[in-house]
Amino acid sequence: MSKPSLPQGTRDFSVAVVRKRNHIFNTIRSVFELYGFQPLETPAMENLDTLMGKYGEEGDKLIFKILNNGLDNSAKHEQARADFEKVLDGKNTKGITERALRYDLTIPFARYVAMNYGQLTLPFKRYQVQPVWRADRPQKGRYREFYQCDADVVGSNSLLNEVELSNIYATVFEKLGVRVEIRINSRKILAALAELCGGSDKMVDITIAIDKIDKIGLEKVKEELLQRGLLAEQVTRIEQYLSISGSNEEKLQQLRQLIGNNATGLAGIAEIEFVLGYTGQQHNLVADLTLARGLNYYTGIIFEVKALDVQMGSIGGGGRYDDLTGLFGVPNVPGVGISFGVDRIYDVMEELNLFPEAVQTGSKVLFFNLGDAESKKAFELMQQLRGSGIACELYHENSKFDKQFKYAEKKQIPFVVIIGSTELAENTCVIKNLKEGKQETVAQASLYEKVSI
Amino acid sequence: MSKPSLPQGTRDFSVAVVRKRNHIFNTIRSVFELYGFQPLETPAMENLDTLMGKYGEEGDKLIFKILNNGLDNSAKHEQARADFEKVLDGKNTKGITERALRYDLTIPFARYVAMNYGQLTLPFKRYQVQPVWRADRPQKGRYREFYQCDADVVGSNSLLNEVELSNIYATVFEKLGVRVEIRINSRKILAALAELCGGSDKMVDITIAIDKIDKIGLEKVKEELLQRGLLAEQVTRIEQYLSISGSNEEKLQQLRQLIGNNATGLAGIAEIEFVLGYTGQQHNLVADLTLARGLNYYTGIIFEVKALDVQMGSIGGGGRYDDLTGLFGVPNVPGVGISFGVDRIYDVMEELNLFPEAVQTGSKVLFFNLGDAESKKAFELMQQLRGSGIACELYHENSKFDKQFKYAEKKQIPFVVIIGSTELAENTCVIKNLKEGKQETVAQASLYEKVSI
Repeated sequence: MSKPSLPQGTRDFSVAVVRKRNHIFNTIRSVFELYGFQPLETPAMENLDTLMGKYGEEGDKLIFKILNNGLDNSAKHEQARADFEKVLDGKNTKGITERALRYDLTIPFARYVAMNYGQLTLPFKRYQVQPVWRADRPQKGRYREFYQCDADVVGSNSLLNEVELSNIYATVFEKLGVRVEIRINSRKILAALAELCGGSDKMVDITIAIDKIDKIGLEKVKEELLQRGLLAEQVTRIEQYLSISGSNEEKLQQLRQLIGNNATGLAGIAEIEFVLGYTGQQHNLVADLTLARGLNYYTGIIFEVKALDVQMGSIGGGGRYDDLTGLFGVPNVPGVGISFGVDRIYDVMEELNLFPEAVQTGSKVLFFNLGDAESKKAFELMQQLRGSGIACELYHENSKFDKQFKYAEKKQIPFVVIIGSTELAENTCVIKNLKEGKQETVAQASLYEKVSI
Repeated sequence: MSKPSLPQGTRDFSVAVVRKRNHIFNTIRSVFELYGFQPLETPAMENLDTLMGKYGEEGDKLIFKILNNGLDNSAKHEQARADFEKVLDGKNTKGITERALRYDLTIPFARYVAMNYGQLTLPFKRYQVQPVWRADRPQKGRYREFYQCDADVVGSNSLLNEVELSNIYATVFEKLGVRVEIRINSRKILAALAELCGGSDKMVDITIAIDKIDKIGLEKVKEELLQRGLLAEQVTRIEQYLSISGSNEEKLQQLRQLIGNNATGLAGIAEIEFVLGYTGQQHNLVADLTLARGLNYYTGIIFEVKALDVQMGSIGGGGRYDDLTGLFGVPNVPGVGISFGVDRIYDVMEELNLFPEAVQTGSKVLFFNLGDAESKKAFELMQQLRGSGIACELYHENSKFDKQFKYAEKKQIPFVVIIGSTELAENTCVIKNLKEGKQETVAQASLYEKVSI
């Protein structure tokens, strides 16, 4: 057997990392619950039909497909060969693969809503925290298995949902201690800009180009717009748009002048003002007119979250869509959702040293093992502590003191309790506080009181 | 688009089900932590090499393999066709598939330990709660995606670990309110039985046959033993063994007579006595000599947990193994582990109605939406409650009272808070307790006090 290894782009999460990640997950989940969102879980596998064609041509190629079992059944070999030719031809065929790993949490959620539409209480507010899989080329910060943390509200057009979602962002990052800027824009404003630049058919070109401004800068965006067939005067207009700056109020004021009385644009401005009007100032909400978001399906407010103290891509994003479930036969279900980028949040917190020490708390007490009778007493006391909710361990064998101490140190167990023959006879125990280096002999009956501080 | 559906053998977990399952998961996790176990997570995908050949021929067939991406690259079609012929021949080939979904948590754990052996503090006590996938034929209670909950200790031969693990079982089921019997046996006793029946080469035959006794009964087990080539007198001896009954002490007494001075058998009896001697009586531990466990790799104490009040297969099982990581190049790492069958535990608790009502707690307060100014005030009060940890919601639009009440009822939200124009003017609000059907008008400032009871 060769040395074992992991598939490219996947990771083991060791104890310390799981605890840190759980700190992030638990914080996000508790805030979702605080805001009335409820948990949903869908299977890792979906029918290939459910996923294909939903993520664009590039996305389709990144879906992990599951090979059908039983292909070695010789009665079916001819058919299997014919089916495999289709795979070589870039087509999917149920003969070879009919299931795939989920690529995101949105399409499975849409599939769930479509299948259960009559039973759901609307608006339906669900959150979902599960891994997804993509056959992307692995690189720093990009994995083939990673968690998504999504919250969506479906069945409501109310902008109060956008207010709530921006507050969820603010609350989560405040609890995690990460200083952020929550950027919002409205797709309606980009639509208005497209109308002002020759027609709504320009919307996709404009969105795709603007979406890159953080990465490639204004000049390259202008080049790309020209390449995409926009006229020089239209590009100048977009440049005017992208150059709008100042406070939120100042930006919206300049935007109003640019947009004139374009109805779609004015509706977009009203959306942004509504959301800012609630808790915008308090929570560092920023109207960012250069924000576009890559995905095509957004139709209203869009969000993006950037960490203030670390150079890093967005650590959260989302927006409003008009029709979640139309693809699955249930039309006209509007919604709005946000997502947290847990891997990046982890990196930000690691870089800024933001994980609380308490996150790594494992066992609080190690009982030394100094023989059969001694360890039986230790076991009895340990069970009492566990009954009071204190995590503890009894060293597994009667080894040298040194070895048992080392175990406690490596596992960062703060208290060591020693019961030798003397302590056994006198109903006492020695408690050693490893951090402070102090020790004392106390009655066994007062053990809980001593270690529960 | 045809109606969406789920792959056979997979499930969506709706809100109420997720909450119940989390009650089970959280209980198990918290007990694992109480006993000094630490969390580990491994990826859903493993290299096919890591998994194949570890679960027997039948197991290999049930592994879900992932189709390689990029097979439509025309430069590689000839090779792909040749590789596919191997798949048709029942072989695996990296040209078509090189990754697969994990089949259990034990082999990934072994792979992890082998890869990180030098860095681990031994004994290493880890728990893991993750889904696994098997291409089994779906049927009632058997799924293609299901969670396993495992705790293992590696790097220790001490029987104290077996004591700890049986206490974990007892504590978890006590916390869940499920009355159980924890059955233990030792593979050493079965080994001794094999030696008494003509040689250790009979061990596998005897184990496999005995393992079925719960399902097929003694007579069929005897038939199977004869078919497997055991002689009539050997089968009689096994029948004597299987007929041992009485209290734990009585059983061990009869067993001693049957086994005589067979050293392996006496070692097995000593193991059972050690484990029973700690907390056996207190925790309903039963020496069950008919317990065999199907898997070949157990070498010492084996466990199985049965619910007392429901007819159901085992809801937990495990045992000691001599060599976890030998297959991955790190020999002589002994260990012992247990597993919880969450789907069955769920069914038992559902049947006995054991889920606490509090498990379903979602939002505690629904604020009615009665207009712009009113809802802005409601929003402000809501944020204060959330700041104090109370989950609440503001109805998303200014709808009729009736509709808003219905939403609260369907989501089982216990309190409704109503702020109309009068209350807005007077800084009051109406609180309605939906369960008790009572309502009262209170100052907005005392809202927290009223709903936090």
